[in-house]
Parts: sequence; C-alpha cells; structure tokens
Amino acid sequence: MKLTILFGGASFEHEISIVSAITVKQKLEKFDLSFIFCDGDHKFYLIDEKKMKATTFSRGEHKKMPELTLTNGGFTQKSLFGSTKHISPVLNLIHGGDGEDGSIASLLDFFDIKFIGPRKVACTFSYDKRYTKYLCDAIGVKSVAYEIFTKNEAKNLNLSMPVIVKPATLGSSIGVSIVKDESEFDYALDTAFEYDDAVLIEPFIEGVKEYNLAGYMADEKIHFSIVEEPQKEEFLDFEKKYMDFLRSEQVSRADIDEELTNKLKSSFEKVYRGMFEGALIRCDFFVVNGEILLNEINPIPGSMANYLFEDFEQVIVDLLSALPEAKRVKVSYDYIHSISSAKGK
Amino acid sequence: MKLTILFGGASFEHEISIVSAITVKQKLEKFDLSFIFCDGDHKFYLIDEKKMKATTFSRGEHKKMPELTLTNGGFTQKSLFGSTKHISPVLNLIHGGDGEDGSIASLLDFFDIKFIGPRKVACTFSYDKRYTKYLCDAIGVKSVAYEIFTKNEAKNLNLSMPVIVKPATLGSSIGVSIVKDESEFDYALDTAFEYDDAVLIEPFIEGVKEYNLAGYMADEKIHFSIVEEPQKEEFLDFEKKYMDFLRSEQVSRADIDEELTNKLKSSFEKVYRGMFEGALIRCDFFVVNGEILLNEINPIPGSMANYLFEDFEQVIVDLLSALPEAKRVKVSYDYIHSISSAKGK
Repeated sequence: MKLTILFGGASFEHEISIVSAITVKQKLEKFDLSFIFCDGDHKFYLIDEKKMKATTFSRGEHKKMPELTLTNGGFTQKSLFGSTKHISPVLNLIHGGDGEDGSIASLLDFFDIKFIGPRKVACTFSYDKRYTKYLCDAIGVKSVAYEIFTKNEAKNLNLSMPVIVKPATLGSSIGVSIVKDESEFDYALDTAFEYDDAVLIEPFIEGVKEYNLAGYMADEKIHFSIVEEPQKEEFLDFEKKYMDFLRSEQVSRADIDEELTNKLKSSFEKVYRGMFEGALIRCDFFVVNGEILLNEINPIPGSMANYLFEDFEQVIVDLLSALPEAKRVKVSYDYIHSISSAKGK
Repeated sequence: MKLTILFGGASFEHEISIVSAITVKQKLEKFDLSFIFCDGDHKFYLIDEKKMKATTFSRGEHKKMPELTLTNGGFTQKSLFGSTKHISPVLNLIHGGDGEDGSIASLLDFFDIKFIGPRKVACTFSYDKRYTKYLCDAIGVKSVAYEIFTKNEAKNLNLSMPVIVKPATLGSSIGVSIVKDESEFDYALDTAFEYDDAVLIEPFIEGVKEYNLAGYMADEKIHFSIVEEPQKEEFLDFEKKYMDFLRSEQVSRADIDEELTNKLKSSFEKVYRGMFEGALIRCDFFVVNGEILLNEINPIPGSMANYLFEDFEQVIVDLLSALPEAKRVKVSYDYIHSISSAKGK
C-alpha cells in the first residue's frame, strides 16, 4: 500500500516533525512509503528512503535531492525528460505551524491530493488554544478556566497563583511556563510572547490526573486507542516532549475503571465528530474532582501516537479507506448566459 | 499603484466573482491592474484587461490566455524563453468557496504573496455561519437564535414558524428559503442540503430593520463606511443579489441617529479586531426592539462594498499600506545537532 509521509514545515516544531517521520517510518514497514520534506523556505523535496535520518536535514543534504511542486492531483517532479507526478495519498506529519494551522490541509485539498490529517476548519479549532475554548463552550465539553493576554495590552490577571502560561498556538510545551509567584509572571509572559502574539493563562492544578486518548473515524465509527496516563514530572518540557516523539514502544493502559474510560471516549467523540474526520487525533484530558476537562487537542500527535495502538499499520489502512474528499463545485455560467441572451449578444 | 485582482474559484459564487471583478475594475481606474482568474479546475490564468467581460469566461476563452502557477513570492508565467513572476499584491475577490473558506488565504500566505482579504482563521469564523455563532458567543456580540440540522440526522425543530433555512456555508442567498408553514419545512431543508451538509435554521423576524456596515483596519484604527439600510423585499434572492454585485453607485446613508450608528460600529469593531486585519469586510446587522444582532459577516463583500465608500480608491491604498504579513518561522536544528554530537557523530 502506497503512502507519502509529508514532514518538516517552517515551524518551531520543524525538528520534531523530522523525528516523528523517522519513527513512523519504522512503524509502517509493510507500506510502500515515499517521503516529501517541506523545508523552512516552503520548498518540497523528495527524500531518498535511505537518507531518512535527522542529519540529512540539519546538514542541508536534502537540497541535492529532487525538488517537487504542488500540482493538481499530486506533487510533480520535473526533469530534463519530462515530469513525474507522485499521486499516492499523503500522511500530513508536519507538526505545529504549516501542518496544524490549516495551510497544508488547504494546499492538499486545493490541489485535490488525498491525505490523512486534520482539515482546515479542524486546524483552526485545535491549533489555537483560544479557539479550542470557543469549541468546547459551543459543544458542551468542559475545559480549564482561562484568560487571554495579547501583546501590547496592559491588563491585570484575575486568576490566582499558580498559573500556567502558554503561547496560544504552540505545541510541544514550547514557550510554556509555570508561574508560582506573581514576581515571575511578567517574565513568563515575555517568554510566551516570543512565540505568539496571544497568550493563554490557566490555573495550574497541582496533582491533577492526566489522561491521553487517541482515535480516528473509519466505517462510520470512532476507533479508540488505549487510555494512557502520561508519566510526568511537573510538566513535560520541550526536551522531554522531544524525546517523546521518538516513542514507538506500546505503552500500558491507564489503571482506570470502565466508567471513566467511557466518559473520556464520550468527550473525545463530541470533539471529533463533524470536524476531525480524516485525522487521527489525540485528546489530552484532566480529571479534577471527578470532572473531565479537555486540556488540548493534538490534531497531528507526535509520531501519530503509534504507541497507543496495538496494530498501528491497521490504523493507517483504516484511515486511508475513510478519507473525506474535498468537494469541488462544478461551476456554471447560467446567469451570464441568461444576461447575455437578454442583451441579444 | 500595482494590484492584481484574483477572481473566479470553484464555487457556487463563481459567476458572482466574475461580475464583482468587472465592477471593481471600473472603480479602480487609477491603479495599474492585473487580472488572475481561477477556473473551476483550480487552474490560474492571466487575463488580458481588454477581455475582462463576463462572456470571456462563459465561453472558455480564458483557456487561450497564459497559465500561471503559484510559486514562492508570486504567480509565475512560463514561456519558451524563461519565466516571469507576477509579484504585485493581490486583491482576493473570490466569493464563496475557495476565496472565503480559507483556501486562497492559505495558498497566498504559504507562497508569501501579499494580499487584501480575510486570513485563514477569519475565513473559518465567517464562511460557516455555525462558527460565526461560536465567535459571537465568545466575544459577546448578540446574534439571532439558531438550530443546526445535519444531513441524515432525524430530529425535530424547536423553533416556531416562520423560520429561515440556510446552508451553513453559502452566501448570496443561494439555497435559502423562508418557511411559513411546517408543511414547507422538509422541502426547504432538502433545498439547503443540496449545497451543504449542515443547515442553519433561524427564526424569520418579520419587519426587522437591517443595516449594513463595512470597514477595514489601517493606521491601527478601523475606517468605517456609511451605514446602509438595504432595500429589500422579503429578502434578496439570488438573482437580485447577483445584480447587487454590479453596484458601483454610492448609496445614501441610512436614516438613523448617532447612538445607533455608534453601537453598530462598536459591534463591528468587536468582530473585526484581532481576526480580520488585512480585509475589508461588511457586517450585516438586524435591529430588533432596540437590540443589535449580527446576522452575517461578509469577509469578501460583493464588489468590495465599493458603493458604501466615498473614495474607494483611497480605501484600497489604505489597505495596501496595512497588510499583515505571514510570519515565516526560521527553522533551527539545535536539538538534532545536540543529539548528534552527544552520539559522537
């Protein structure tokens, strides 16, 4: 089965995407894989499978490989003797900007290329944590209380310490701080503003139980992964999360009862249905006093959360069988024709 | 001043976009204009200014004109002797699908082409009327009550007659019906489902006052058009709205007091700020018992609502001076370098 892994992207998570692609490659040995790399200048390269290692990209060796352009129906490789179109379905594995902000989804849909990954509306509601809150309120899924700070805006924080300070649009804990004392707040805010013009502040809940659940839609129903209780210290910083993207060993099931498992699945389903079709997503939940709160939606989780599934190759086969297609409207010229004929032209 | 008008698109509003482009051309005589047409197959053509009339497209004559491809920094025209890149800023005048759903915005941002028009997040919240409701709730702008129906879902309507039935994502009154009696409801629903899988039902408020207000951000402040009270029969159907896109005569100011005008401007500003920068949008409001309700956001209004502004050329000059730029993150390989050196490679 053919599949193209698209990775890289001009984002703070560029390196993470490379690591993720290398991990997923190892997990999909039965597939006939191709690799397309999007570099920091938004150029696409076809990567030789044997060169799929991190240093290929950090050393710029990809620039010697064939450049591709986006064309209707696939990525096209031009040569002196003509052109070849790569038409296999794409797995969008670009984390963060480009991949999760809706750009890649729009490009692939516009050029009529089938892909696994969140569609553009799904990206809007998961990439920016502010809009995840809008979504939660609209569909009746509870989330953590929050305040928004935007750059160059003078205002006071109403939440009490400790708080967690996050850039609105970044994943992988980049730019995130825990603030225990008001004296540290401005510094944490400045750190987050280095990455985004909008910053989300939430209460930091000590000793909160955290559960991760991944899933995807196929055959009209949602297929769930096991529930994981991620190991954590206070929270995962970038370096630890980075190592997380290398994960390929299946983890053990969280020690929770069926009732809680079903509640988590039910919240996941509310988030997923009607928005995330075509994607495998991971939802990260908190449980506080028996109440389930959605913390974050990962529309392209690190290494596709392969470690949460028993048979990851089957997951990708399922997803490929259930990809939503971009509907291209057939244009008509009825009004122009009727006006032209009324004018006698 | 150079400007490229991008129009067409694979959408139900394809013809409307052509008419809109022809109207805007007449209103921007001082500009050095180019015209790029996106056809129903998502191919781009450079249109000869002298051929900018509706029948050029309905007859397929554009296919004889130079084809363009999207490349970093501009649209590129290839010839036997090399290639020419068109690098002037773009006015996105593709109404409906492609133009207003975030696809064109993503493409232009990805390829680093400056443009006037809504950015991708702004498109999500204005193109689909469901998400406009989410936005209204989140930012504290009132809107009309609503229910959502989706295809293949059996449920009862809780609103009482009369109601207005609208496809979630279409503009220009396409697929919209007013239902006065329950016996007409299923037919109206089927009509709307021809255009979209999600349908919005709202109470139809008889004799409601309607006011339209356009505006845009430049020099850090919002510049407003006059407020118009659109002439209407029960509501504008597609044919009448279509003629609306030909409008180029300035209309007269609505006969309302300063207090109401300021309230409309204040609601507009809540919607616009932090989301629609770079675009000229038109907000359509209802006033019911003195209360202002947002009916619709038009992120690319017909013929750019030129008829609501005294000096439309200045509007475009202002907008061009204040275009937000897509921030392209500079990628780094710090982690890969540190891991490689730890491994001694």
